[in-house]
Amino acid sequence: MKKGGRLTLPTDLDIVPETLALIEELDADAIRDCDGTLMPKELTDVKQKIYATYYTTRKDNDWAEANPEEVQQEYLITDRHTAVTDSLEIVLMAGFHTQQLKVNDIDDPKEWWEVIDRTTGKVVPTTDWSYNAEKGSVTLKTIPFHEYTVSFLAFLIWDPVHMYNFITNDWKDAPHQMTFDVRQPKTQEYVKAKLHKFCQDNPHIDVIRFTTFFHQFTLTFDDQKREKFVEWFGYSASVSPYILRQFEKWAGYKFRPEFIVDQGYHNSIFRIPSKEFRDFIEFQQIEVCKLAKELVDIVHSYGKEAMMFLGDHWIGTEPFGKYFENIGLDAVVGSVGNGVTMRMISDIKGVKYTEGRFLPYFFPDVFCEGGNPIHEAKENWLQARRAMLRSPLDRIGYGGYLKLALKWPNFIDTIKQVISEFREIHEKTNETKSYSAPFKVAILNCWGNIRRWMSNQVHHAIWYREIYSYVGVIECLSGMPIDVEFISFEDIKKGIDPEIKVIINAGAYNNSWSGYENWIDEEIVTTIRKWVYEGGGFIGVGDPTSYQHQGRFFQLSDVLGVDKEVGFTLSTDKYNECNPNHFLLEDIEGELDFGEGTPGVYALGKNYQVLAMDQKYVQLAVNSYGKGRSVYFAGLPYSPQNCRLLLRAIYFAATKEHEMKKYYVSNVNTEIAAFESVKRIAVINNTQAEATTDLYIDNIKKETLILKPMEMRWIDLD
Amino acid sequence: MKKGGRLTLPTDLDIVPETLALIEELDADAIRDCDGTLMPKELTDVKQKIYATYYTTRKDNDWAEANPEEVQQEYLITDRHTAVTDSLEIVLMAGFHTQQLKVNDIDDPKEWWEVIDRTTGKVVPTTDWSYNAEKGSVTLKTIPFHEYTVSFLAFLIWDPVHMYNFITNDWKDAPHQMTFDVRQPKTQEYVKAKLHKFCQDNPHIDVIRFTTFFHQFTLTFDDQKREKFVEWFGYSASVSPYILRQFEKWAGYKFRPEFIVDQGYHNSIFRIPSKEFRDFIEFQQIEVCKLAKELVDIVHSYGKEAMMFLGDHWIGTEPFGKYFENIGLDAVVGSVGNGVTMRMISDIKGVKYTEGRFLPYFFPDVFCEGGNPIHEAKENWLQARRAMLRSPLDRIGYGGYLKLALKWPNFIDTIKQVISEFREIHEKTNETKSYSAPFKVAILNCWGNIRRWMSNQVHHAIWYREIYSYVGVIECLSGMPIDVEFISFEDIKKGIDPEIKVIINAGAYNNSWSGYENWIDEEIVTTIRKWVYEGGGFIGVGDPTSYQHQGRFFQLSDVLGVDKEVGFTLSTDKYNECNPNHFLLEDIEGELDFGEGTPGVYALGKNYQVLAMDQKYVQLAVNSYGKGRSVYFAGLPYSPQNCRLLLRAIYFAATKEHEMKKYYVSNVNTEIAAFESVKRIAVINNTQAEATTDLYIDNIKKETLILKPMEMRWIDLD
Repeated sequence: MKKGGRLTLPTDLDIVPETLALIEELDADAIRDCDGTLMPKELTDVKQKIYATYYTTRKDNDWAEANPEEVQQEYLITDRHTAVTDSLEIVLMAGFHTQQLKVNDIDDPKEWWEVIDRTTGKVVPTTDWSYNAEKGSVTLKTIPFHEYTVSFLAFLIWDPVHMYNFITNDWKDAPHQMTFDVRQPKTQEYVKAKLHKFCQDNPHIDVIRFTTFFHQFTLTFDDQKREKFVEWFGYSASVSPYILRQFEKWAGYKFRPEFIVDQGYHNSIFRIPSKEFRDFIEFQQIEVCKLAKELVDIVHSYGKEAMMFLGDHWIGTEPFGKYFENIGLDAVVGSVGNGVTMRMISDIKGVKYTEGRFLPYFFPDVFCEGGNPIHEAKENWLQARRAMLRSPLDRIGYGGYLKLALKWPNFIDTIKQVISEFREIHEKTNETKSYSAPFKVAILNCWGNIRRWMSNQVHHAIWYREIYSYVGVIECLSGMPIDVEFISFEDIKKGIDPEIKVIINAGAYNNSWSGYENWIDEEIVTTIRKWVYEGGGFIGVGDPTSYQHQGRFFQLSDVLGVDKEVGFTLSTDKYNECNPNHFLLEDIEGELDFGEGTPGVYALGKNYQVLAMDQKYVQLAVNSYGKGRSVYFAGLPYSPQNCRLLLRAIYFAATKEHEMKKYYVSNVNTEIAAFESVKRIAVINNTQAEATTDLYIDNIKKETLILKPMEMRWIDLD
Repeated sequence: MKKGGRLTLPTDLDIVPETLALIEELDADAIRDCDGTLMPKELTDVKQKIYATYYTTRKDNDWAEANPEEVQQEYLITDRHTAVTDSLEIVLMAGFHTQQLKVNDIDDPKEWWEVIDRTTGKVVPTTDWSYNAEKGSVTLKTIPFHEYTVSFLAFLIWDPVHMYNFITNDWKDAPHQMTFDVRQPKTQEYVKAKLHKFCQDNPHIDVIRFTTFFHQFTLTFDDQKREKFVEWFGYSASVSPYILRQFEKWAGYKFRPEFIVDQGYHNSIFRIPSKEFRDFIEFQQIEVCKLAKELVDIVHSYGKEAMMFLGDHWIGTEPFGKYFENIGLDAVVGSVGNGVTMRMISDIKGVKYTEGRFLPYFFPDVFCEGGNPIHEAKENWLQARRAMLRSPLDRIGYGGYLKLALKWPNFIDTIKQVISEFREIHEKTNETKSYSAPFKVAILNCWGNIRRWMSNQVHHAIWYREIYSYVGVIECLSGMPIDVEFISFEDIKKGIDPEIKVIINAGAYNNSWSGYENWIDEEIVTTIRKWVYEGGGFIGVGDPTSYQHQGRFFQLSDVLGVDKEVGFTLSTDKYNECNPNHFLLEDIEGELDFGEGTPGVYALGKNYQVLAMDQKYVQLAVNSYGKGRSVYFAGLPYSPQNCRLLLRAIYFAATKEHEMKKYYVSNVNTEIAAFESVKRIAVINNTQAEATTDLYIDNIKKETLILKPMEMRWIDLD
C-alpha cells in the first residue's frame, strides 16, 4: 500500500500551478471541480483521478425552460390566517421567494391542493374555495375566528443549493439554475442521453460524482432570500402529480397534501412518522434507487466510477435503507462535521469505498475576517479521528475555492497533519477492525436503522440548544469501542437481537427519538421490562419512555427508577439524596455536564442510587430491576468526559463492569483503540492540551503515558 | 372607632401575667387557645373576647374508639407493582404509617376497592383478586410485566394535623387523636349534643372557633412519619361508604375509587378536574355547608359567635363556592403567608368579619436557633400590607406558644409596628375602598372563582420551583389597584363580563391553570379571539393556551404573537429581534426576572414586538390583534419590579395606557393606594431600603418623596 493517496483536492481554472504544487506536497491522488469552479483543461492529463461533479437535475436551464411542466415541484403551506368574517383571501406566495418558487397552477388545484381549517383540522370542501391565478390567491368561505391554511404545489424555479451557494458567495451574473424532475418521462430520457454524451465527451474523467440524483432535501427561502425552512431529511421537494399518482397506485389509497405538509411541520424527523409518510419514503426509495441504478449503469458502461454525494439531491436514496445497495455505486462522499456525520458515511454498505469531505469548506463564510479555519480544521479532526478509529473512511478530501485555503497562513500545514494522521490509521491498522465491547448497544427510536447516526439531528452537525444534550449520545458512541445498532419499536416487536445487551432511549418528550405513543404499546413495554428484568441494560436520556398515561410520565419508570414531575405530584414528597460514590463516576474529576438537563426528574422505588442532583431533582441515577440495570441521564452533550461517563454507564448497565478495562486509559480526555489482529493500540488525546494517562490492558495497569496536545500514539502490543 | 383592638393573642396556662401585660401593651381585644395550649381559668373574666378553638372531629378518643365504623376514612392507593409472573401480592399499608391509617375491611373490599392494571388502565375483575386481612395484602392474577395498584379505604386513626403538631412539637404523652366522621348519623347527633353542652358549660366563651368542620385536607404520612403526600385542597379524606352511597344517589351514577385516587395524583388541583371530581366537590359542598349551618345555629342559639378556621378540616366548605354563605358564620380566620393568602381570607363574602393569623406561628420550628422570626414577620407584613390596602382583613392575630414570642428579643416590638400599621389602614381609610383601574382583569383557568387566589398554588404560600413563576401573577395582583375576577372556561362560554378588559392565562403545560384540552374547544378559542379582536387584552404567562394541535402548541398563537418550539420546527428559521423600547419597560431599570422562564418561545406573525430575549428565544413580547392586544411573559415571579411590569402590561393590554398615571409612583419598589372618598393616599415602600419616588396624580407629577425602609406614608389630597 502506498504511503500517500486517499486524498481529493478541489481545483479551479485560475489556480493550475498551485494545484499541481499542492498535489505534490500533499501526495493527493484525486482532484475535483465544485459548484462554482471548473476543472482546468491543463489538468486533464494528471495521473491523479479526476472527479467530475455531475448535476442530474440542474445546470441546464434550456431544458427546464422548454419543459416547464417537468420542473421539480415542492409542497408548500401558507402561513395560518385567522378569518374575521365569513370569507378570507390568502395570497399563496406571501413569505416565500418568488425567484425560488412559483405556484403550480398547471395541475388542477382542486385535485392537488388542500385548504384546511386548522381550528378544527377539517378540510374545507373544494366547492368553498377558488383560486385566482392573477392575484395568486385563494379565496375561501370561512367560520369567523377559525384559522386556515392552503397547501399547494409550487415549481422549484431556482435550485435551492444553487441559490444558497449563489447567496453565500455573492455571485452576480450566474443564471438561476432551475431544477427539473428526472423521474418524469421526458426529462428522464433526456438526462440519460445527456449522461451518455458526457461520458463519451469526457474520457479524462475517472469518477462521475453525482451531486446528486433526483430530489433536493427541503430548503426553502423566504421573501427576503433568507433561509425559511430547511430539512436535510425532507421529502417535501420530491413530489409531483406524476409521482403522486404512481404512489396512490402503489399504496392503494388516496394521496393527501397533508401527508407532506404535515400541519406545517413538513415531516421534521422529530415528528412521530405517520404511516402515510413512511409509505411515501418507502415508495420513493424503491423508485429513486431503481432509476439511480440506471444512471450508474451508464457510468459503468464507460469504464468510469460512480460516486454519490450524500447531500443536496440525495432524497430517496437513503443509504441505510433497504434499496440503496441495489444502486451499485462505487463510492459515497459526504461532509464530515464531527464523529457522527463521519460514521454516517463510513458505515454505509454496498459501496467500494467512502470519502469524507472535511471541514472547513473553502468558502468565504469561514475564510474571512473573524473566521478561524485552522481551529475549525483541528476540532473537526479531533471529533472525526476517534470515530475514524472505529469505522474509517477510505478517503478524505476538501471542497470549495482552493485559492482561499492557500492564502490563509499555516492552514495547509494544519491539514497536512490531518492527512498524515488519517493515512497513519490505515497503515497501522492494516484495515483491521478495532476491538469492541463483547456486546452490542442499541439506540431505540421511531426510525431505527434508516436514520443510523442521524438521531436527534436537525441538520448535519449544526448545534441547536434543543438537541445537543441528546446528540451527544451518538457523538460519544461514534468514537467508542462499542458496536452500535439503531433499532425501531417495530424491531423490538420482532424480538431483541441477543447480541444487544444495552438499549438507549434518548430524546425530548413527544418526538420520534423518545418515541411518545409507542410507550403505551403494551407489547413494547412488557417486552422491554422482561428483557431488562432478565439481565438487559436500559439507558434513558432526557425524557425516555415519556407519555402521560395512568399516573406516570416515564412509562418505564419502574425500570428506570425515576419519573418526571410534570406538576401533578408536587404535593407528593420526594426524599431523594445524592450519593456519587459509584462505578460510573470513578475516574470523573470535573464537574458533570448534563447540557440543558431535564427539570423535575426524581427517583422512586427501592432500588435506585442517585449520583447527581440539581437542587432537589435528579440528573444521574442508576437502578436495578430484576437481573438487569438502568441508568438515567438528564442530558449528555458531547465532551471527552461524557464519552467516558457513557462508556461506564454502558458497561454498568450491561453488568460487565469487570470487562471494561480490557483496553483502557484512565484520563477521560484520552481514549484507546486496540487492533488485536495487528497487535497494536492507538492512544489518542482528544484535547488541545497535554494529557497524562494510565494505560490498562487486561485490567492491569501497564504504564503511564504523557501525550502531547492532540497526539495519536501507536503502541505495539507484546 | 377605638384606636386599638382588632387583635387576637394566643395564651396558655403557664403565662397568665405575661398575657395580661401584653394585652395591655398591644391593646388586644381577643385571646384564644391553640392546639396544645389551654385557656387559663384566670383569664375567663377579662373584658377581651375569648375564642375557644373547637374541634368537631377530634379530641374525643372515647367516642372514636366506641364507634370505629364512624372514624373518618381516606382513599389510599398503593405504590405501583410490576408483575413478573402471573400473580402478585401487594401489601396495602407498605409506605404508609400504621399509626395514622388502618385498612378499612369492615366495608366490603370488593365493593369499595379497585385493583387496576396501570399498563392498560383496565380494572382487574374482583374475581381475580382477594384480600388477606391477616397479611394486609391483596393477591391478584396478573399479566407478566404489567403494573398494578390497589385503591382502598383506610380509617384515619390519627388526625393528620394533630399528628403534624405532635411531631413538630415533639410531644410525648399526648394520646393520638382519632378523627371521626361528623357526617355519619350517630356521630352527628353526638357532636351536636356535645356542642350544646360546651356552649352551656362555657358562658365565658364569646367565639367558637371551629377548627374546623368535618373533613381534613389530605395529609398523609409515610412509614417513617415523614409527610408523604399533602393536598391542602384535597378531598381524599372526605369519603366513606355512607357518604359515597349518598353521592351515587345524588349524581345518578356509580362511584369509583378512581374518581378520588386519580391514577395516584389524588386530584391535585393541577389536574384538569374530571366531571366526576367536580360533581363530588359540588355534592360535598352542599352537604358540608348544610351540616355546618346546623352547628353554627347551635352556637348562635347561645348568643355566641361562630368563626371558621380556613384550614385543617375545611374541606367541602369552599368559601368561594356557591353554598358557603348559607352556613351563616360570623367570621373566618386563616393563616396569612403573603398577599395572596391574605386575599384568600379577606375576599370571602357572607361573614361579618375576617381575621388573619399572621406569621410566624409561635412554634419551635421558627423560634429556634437558626430561625429568624423577625425577618419572617417583616417580609410577611410587606407582602400582606399591599394586599391589605386593596381588600383589608378586619382583624389580625397570632397563634402558637406566646411564651416563645415573648422570649425572643425585639420580636414583640416588630409585631407592635405591624399591628400599628394595620390599625392605621382602617383608621385612615375609614373602611372605604381604594381606587381601582376602571376595568376588571380576569384570571382564566379550569377552576374559576372557586379557587379565587389559589391558582398555581401547591400549599398555602409554600415556594416550589415549578410554580413561583406563575404564582407571582396573583401575588402581584393581590396588592395592585386592579379588581380581579377568577373565571373558568365555562364562564367564557356563558359570555365574558363586559367589565373585564384583560384576561390572563398563566400556567405550565397540561394543567388546570393553563387549561389544556379547553384550548381545542372551538367555542372557547373563537370567543376569545373575537373578544380580543374587538378590543380585549390577553396576557399569557408560561404555556398559555397550550395544547399540541394542528401545527401549533399555543392554540392562541395568533392572538399572542408567539408560539413555543417543541421540537417540530427546529428546521424553521426564526428571525426574532429584541426591541426593549416600549411602554411596558418605561420605568424598569433592573434586570428583568422571568423566574424559571419558558424555553423555546418565539414570535410570529407581523404585529409583534419582542421586548426581552434569552439567547434566541422570547421572554417578553407584545402583539396587536385587531383592536386588541396581547402580552406574553415567559414567567412572572413575585417582586416589586414585576408588580410594576404587570401593571403596565395590564394597562397596555387594555389599551388604557393613558389612564395608568391617575395615581402613580415612579419607583418600582413603591406603590400607591388612593382612597378617593376620604381624599387620602398611601404610598408604601415595599422594601427594607430607603426609596425615592415621584408622585403622580391625574398624570401630573406632584412631588418627589423619600420613603424610609418599609414606610407607609399617608398623604391628604388637596
